[in-house]
Amino acid sequence: MSPSGVRRQWEVVPSDIAQKTHNPLRNVVENLRLEPNPEKSMIALSIGDPTVFGNLKPPVEVIEAMQESLLSIRYNGYAPSTGHQEAREAVARYSSSAAVTVHSQDVVLCSGCSCALDLAITVLANPGQNILVPRPGFPLYRTLAESLGIHVKSYNLRPERGWEVDTMHLEQQIDASTAALVVSNPSNPCGSVYSRQHLRDILQVARAKFVPVIADEIYEHMVFPGQTFHPLASVSDDVPILACSGITKRFLVPGWRMGWITIHDRHGIFETAGVRAGLQRLSQRILGSNTLVQGALASIFTRTPEKFFQDTIMTLQCHANIAYDMLKGAKGLTPLMPKGAMYMMVGINMAEFPDFASELNFVEQMVTEESVFCLPSKCFDYTNYMRLVLTVPEEQLREACHRITAFCKRYHRPEDADSHKGNTDVVETCTSNCSAALRESRDLIVPKDASISP
Amino acid sequence: MSPSGVRRQWEVVPSDIAQKTHNPLRNVVENLRLEPNPEKSMIALSIGDPTVFGNLKPPVEVIEAMQESLLSIRYNGYAPSTGHQEAREAVARYSSSAAVTVHSQDVVLCSGCSCALDLAITVLANPGQNILVPRPGFPLYRTLAESLGIHVKSYNLRPERGWEVDTMHLEQQIDASTAALVVSNPSNPCGSVYSRQHLRDILQVARAKFVPVIADEIYEHMVFPGQTFHPLASVSDDVPILACSGITKRFLVPGWRMGWITIHDRHGIFETAGVRAGLQRLSQRILGSNTLVQGALASIFTRTPEKFFQDTIMTLQCHANIAYDMLKGAKGLTPLMPKGAMYMMVGINMAEFPDFASELNFVEQMVTEESVFCLPSKCFDYTNYMRLVLTVPEEQLREACHRITAFCKRYHRPEDADSHKGNTDVVETCTSNCSAALRESRDLIVPKDASISP
Ligand SMILES: Cc1ncc(COP(=O)(O)O)c(C=O)c1O
Ligand SMILES: Cc1ncc(COP(=O)(O)O)c(C=O)c1O
Repeated sequence: MSPSGVRRQWEVVPSDIAQKTHNPLRNVVENLRLEPNPEKSMIALSIGDPTVFGNLKPPVEVIEAMQESLLSIRYNGYAPSTGHQEAREAVARYSSSAAVTVHSQDVVLCSGCSCALDLAITVLANPGQNILVPRPGFPLYRTLAESLGIHVKSYNLRPERGWEVDTMHLEQQIDASTAALVVSNPSNPCGSVYSRQHLRDILQVARAKFVPVIADEIYEHMVFPGQTFHPLASVSDDVPILACSGITKRFLVPGWRMGWITIHDRHGIFETAGVRAGLQRLSQRILGSNTLVQGALASIFTRTPEKFFQDTIMTLQCHANIAYDMLKGAKGLTPLMPKGAMYMMVGINMAEFPDFASELNFVEQMVTEESVFCLPSKCFDYTNYMRLVLTVPEEQLREACHRITAFCKRYHRPEDADSHKGNTDVVETCTSNCSAALRESRDLIVPKDASISP
Repeated sequence: MSPSGVRRQWEVVPSDIAQKTHNPLRNVVENLRLEPNPEKSMIALSIGDPTVFGNLKPPVEVIEAMQESLLSIRYNGYAPSTGHQEAREAVARYSSSAAVTVHSQDVVLCSGCSCALDLAITVLANPGQNILVPRPGFPLYRTLAESLGIHVKSYNLRPERGWEVDTMHLEQQIDASTAALVVSNPSNPCGSVYSRQHLRDILQVARAKFVPVIADEIYEHMVFPGQTFHPLASVSDDVPILACSGITKRFLVPGWRMGWITIHDRHGIFETAGVRAGLQRLSQRILGSNTLVQGALASIFTRTPEKFFQDTIMTLQCHANIAYDMLKGAKGLTPLMPKGAMYMMVGINMAEFPDFASELNFVEQMVTEESVFCLPSKCFDYTNYMRLVLTVPEEQLREACHRITAFCKRYHRPEDADSHKGNTDVVETCTSNCSAALRESRDLIVPKDASISP
């Protein structure tokens, strides 16, 4: 810009928001050298899209519900930006239980759970404030917050305790600028499912420090037999909670982009502050989610047979058991048995793989040699793990686990004093993160009922 | 917050963004006293949703395309956040012509044109900078910008010249902080369609001042017989343009939320700056638009018969002619004949309606007595007009125009020196905006071929 304030040439610069919007996952993956072995078919255990392999499909009832919505010619017009009343009522009923009552006016329909998280974070936090997110955790929280100049502080999860929140660490992270606490249950990437008592402990911290909570429950109900999913809002009646969910995962339609926020605010803390009105205003920016899906929502909820959910969960648990059983024999690896969601975290005892500087090199080389790709835990702001998706077809999963095992065998060096030389950092991180502690925890989180395993 | 930085109570406050997100239209309408006359059925000429009256429906080919997409079971998974390649290619072909070539990599699919405008404004402007928008104009530009702390400056349109841009005024508004110029063509609320020469004149200002352009072309091709729609990008090869459009209006499916940005940047100004990459990053916040619609897009474009578009346009023009013919006889009103889109602006010579302080009171009272509601031009940051939608069924439109005429007759006072007393402001605004100038312009913008008028 010239002194006179008149431009003499093009000076287009993308905005700060655009520049600050980073997907950590994509950044990590794009910097990996991923060249599969041409001799072996590629198996991507990295893709968090359950539909991509063709083995998991939405129930026919959901397709039918959409078809009816389409053919009714009733759902082509604009809906209110928070959603059609009947669709919000359907979500309210779906989200209510003996322990929680949701009213339709407490539902904001969004374009996927991502958009729900976006609105929830955006309504609660200002630039310069911070939100607390789990480590390891889903990278979108950071993407959404940091692009708006909201800081992100991480609280630790404890792999040796089924990835429970380190509530002491959580409490220490809270400061005067903490605008919200994000709790992810069931968890991507961990596959953890929290007990009612543990959720109570987390809420106790929020209550004591007066921090409102954003509950990411997109994997709600996706828990293995013997486990129970407790909506966070069912545990508290005084901590204000914005719960985010959607049909993405449970109904296997991620591309349909239907999610929602439910507002839980029995003591009127959000209401008094104007958070509901704020969410409503924010929803006007893009005028809501697809109306055909809104028109189908009530039927989707009521018609999908219980068996469909059971089948999905059986598949996931069966695959978890396969991967667990196969990988627990792999040298230097410590698979952690999930309790729900669609993922398994596998600890890599880096000290026993002196050829690799980090789990990044490990997963890279595994692609080069075995054409198997798992996301390195760096994608989730963590070290020394890789995440497997459990939605791949069984045969591919078995083949992948074979190849992973062979790969580990090739590179594994028994941990000894020698291998530590000049490599102390890595060894230390690793020991604390995934070796001794995890071996101990293994039994803790193996499902009691392993009979479904083939 | 206590001095120690420890909260002693709940202090939830909605964020600045949430508080700054205002829909001027909604704000205006919510502050009106709208109590219809119980003796007369309500006729809402205010609703910008063409499907709401049931007379305008999407073509069966579009419903079929969606059905095929749904039943193919191929479009349930996540798409890339900018859209499936084949859908982007379809938009590229649809948006290309002899004069403009769009490549698929220049297409970003969005959740409606609103979301496209959101991304376009967000990528180009920082808080503290400004964007220029037309006055009168679509209120969403302001909603989107101001919530992010981006200032909005208005440039005047000239009703007496078919709502052309006052390019001198436009040029004066541009300052060192101007990040983008929004051009709306065809226009909501004006129904104007700009000539190639006028678009050239607008671009000449942008070029001279080095201001990139956001072209809101959601009403592209919706122009009356005898008019031609020129995409802004077809007029320039050097001013960088983000064109925003979608299937909302032309295909009569606003609820489906499918829009897009096409990047026009033949001199690589956006590219060098990283605007494309910025758009891509921003699109990751909510992970894109509904995949079923993406799967249907190619068929929607190729299969919709030309006759469907013609029918819609005939209906719109026929309705425009009816409203124009009926209201030009109404005392104190000056209807302006549109050339496209779905709206008609009607000037209210407020000096001749001394009972009303502004057009707000005028439309309020018209609801109270006649149960006819038109949006006051304040919704579009303008005075002394009301906007009629032309998508209502003919019988309702006629009945509404009758009632409007009767209402005007009741309240009209021939303009004379007396009625000016104590009311100078209103009179002045009005004279300049809509009386003499408009009467003159009336002939100018009456369509040459009025034979379609019933
Ligand atoms: C933990 C978590 N939250 C939210 C989302 C986003 O869900 P949606 O696709 O509905 O936006 C995902 C998707 O992978 C997820 O894993
Ligand atoms: C001028 C203008 N631009 C953009 C839009 C938004 O379109 P969409 O519904 O695709 O978000 C509208 C809707 O009325 C409009 O009138």
